Amino acid sequence: MYFSTVAIVGVGLLGGSIGLALQKRQLARRVIGIGRNEAKLIEAENRHAVTEVTTDLAQGVADADLVIICTPVETVVSQVEAIAKACKKGTLITDVGSTKGSIVAGADKVLADGIGLWATFVGSHPMAGSEKTGVLFAKEDLFVNRAVIVTPSDATPPEAKSRIEAFWQALGARTITLPADKHDELVAFASHVPHLVASALAASTPADALPLVAGGWLDSTRIAAGDIELWRQILSENRSHTLLALTHFEKVISSFRAALESGDQAQISRLLRQGKTTRDSVGN
Amino acid sequence: MYFSTVAIVGVGLLGGSIGLALQKRQLARRVIGIGRNEAKLIEAENRHAVTEVTTDLAQGVADADLVIICTPVETVVSQVEAIAKACKKGTLITDVGSTKGSIVAGADKVLADGIGLWATFVGSHPMAGSEKTGVLFAKEDLFVNRAVIVTPSDATPPEAKSRIEAFWQALGARTITLPADKHDELVAFASHVPHLVASALAASTPADALPLVAGGWLDSTRIAAGDIELWRQILSENRSHTLLALTHFEKVISSFRAALESGDQAQISRLLRQGKTTRDSVGN
Repeated sequence: MYFSTVAIVGVGLLGGSIGLALQKRQLARRVIGIGRNEAKLIEAENRHAVTEVTTDLAQGVADADLVIICTPVETVVSQVEAIAKACKKGTLITDVGSTKGSIVAGADKVLADGIGLWATFVGSHPMAGSEKTGVLFAKEDLFVNRAVIVTPSDATPPEAKSRIEAFWQALGARTITLPADKHDELVAFASHVPHLVASALAASTPADALPLVAGGWLDSTRIAAGDIELWRQILSENRSHTLLALTHFEKVISSFRAALESGDQAQISRLLRQGKTTRDSVGN
Repeated sequence: MYFSTVAIVGVGLLGGSIGLALQKRQLARRVIGIGRNEAKLIEAENRHAVTEVTTDLAQGVADADLVIICTPVETVVSQVEAIAKACKKGTLITDVGSTKGSIVAGADKVLADGIGLWATFVGSHPMAGSEKTGVLFAKEDLFVNRAVIVTPSDATPPEAKSRIEAFWQALGARTITLPADKHDELVAFASHVPHLVASALAASTPADALPLVAGGWLDSTRIAAGDIELWRQILSENRSHTLLALTHFEKVISSFRAALESGDQAQISRLLRQGKTTRDSVGN
């Protein structure tokens, strides 16, 4: 797995970490950081997350063998289109968006409709975010032992899927291949509802209780500090699956409420045990 | 602040950490660990969390200037009674229970009714637990910079309250003094509802979503691994306040649901911002 030129569109926490890992592991000769904000690009360059930077997307992707789109989910499809129009034949494109259904369908449509577009898109979702944002928090080992979901569609050539899997594995990740819709269904439980719940937990804590919070509250609300616009887009893009997963959560909350109201000690224990059993099965 | 003899009833994570801190800070000559389980007492002794151990409560507290009850919340009041009957005049008793209303009222009643009982009880709640239990996880610095709520009642002599505050401060904690009922109201938000929510979040995650979980799910469900019986007792003892705090949480969840269902982007952002603002105000 070696690339002559990799372009990263959006050099924040994820894009910056990919750039650092590519260089550290000597997987690419050139790593081009592309963005609209010059100050952020300079920051990425100073951090040595990339080898060069540009605000010109077409110029940045012209020589790329691989382009990784690390911009908010609502912008990914239009980036795929713009990249496909500017890149050389055979360029492979992936992304890091937290939702996959609309991105994969949109990218397939753009590439199928676009006469003369020879790029190939394979969706990815590395399960390695943080409530912290920006290239200053980027880490070369961010993907080591992390799951990356790769979401090929019926239109995906098998070798393109294999190369994207090999790319993430070369960064230290383990890949899981799922259809985009299945990804969105499962990630609603694994990530989107937890975010919504953490946010609601923080928002419903009155100011006079805050001096009393300790490890439990701090852990269970940590992701509520995440970027608002990023999460608005994720929750909105994946709203049907998120609402379904939320229903499962609300049912357990209702069971807890009923058990507490009726003083059903055995049921309180049973519910706590369900949570503990699931949590213990995963580890730290 | 110096004690000739301190007795700790229940030498697990909290009791063991108190014992370690007392010795490290040279605040007590003798630290007697009391418990029913001999194996656990030997573990505490091997860990040097205490200087001696006994399974005989009456014998263990006979010489104590200070007794700290670190047993589950439902047992605290009966421990206060047993200790008061066996200790010398002037012994100060406190506890570490996560609920305070019924404990403080029960202890006051026991001590007021008990002819010839000369001990004084002041309730405490150190906000320094963990999902891990047992003396092996005890740490001498567990209380450093942590909040400890001290809950005197109308029956509490001011000097007893001051000595308990000084005791926790000597272990490195900052103390907050609250009436027991106010404690229970606020801690429902700061700790009990977060526990219930973390448990419900873990319990509602289907098995096929677990390979996809990352930092967000892991953080927000961590406390669900806590001891089931301990938490059954806490939630049951504080059920009225917990149900009230749960209502506040459920209202925010309902607002999120409505905003997602109607696609009200401004409202989704507003809710996420409320959570982020509260979370950011607290720090890590």
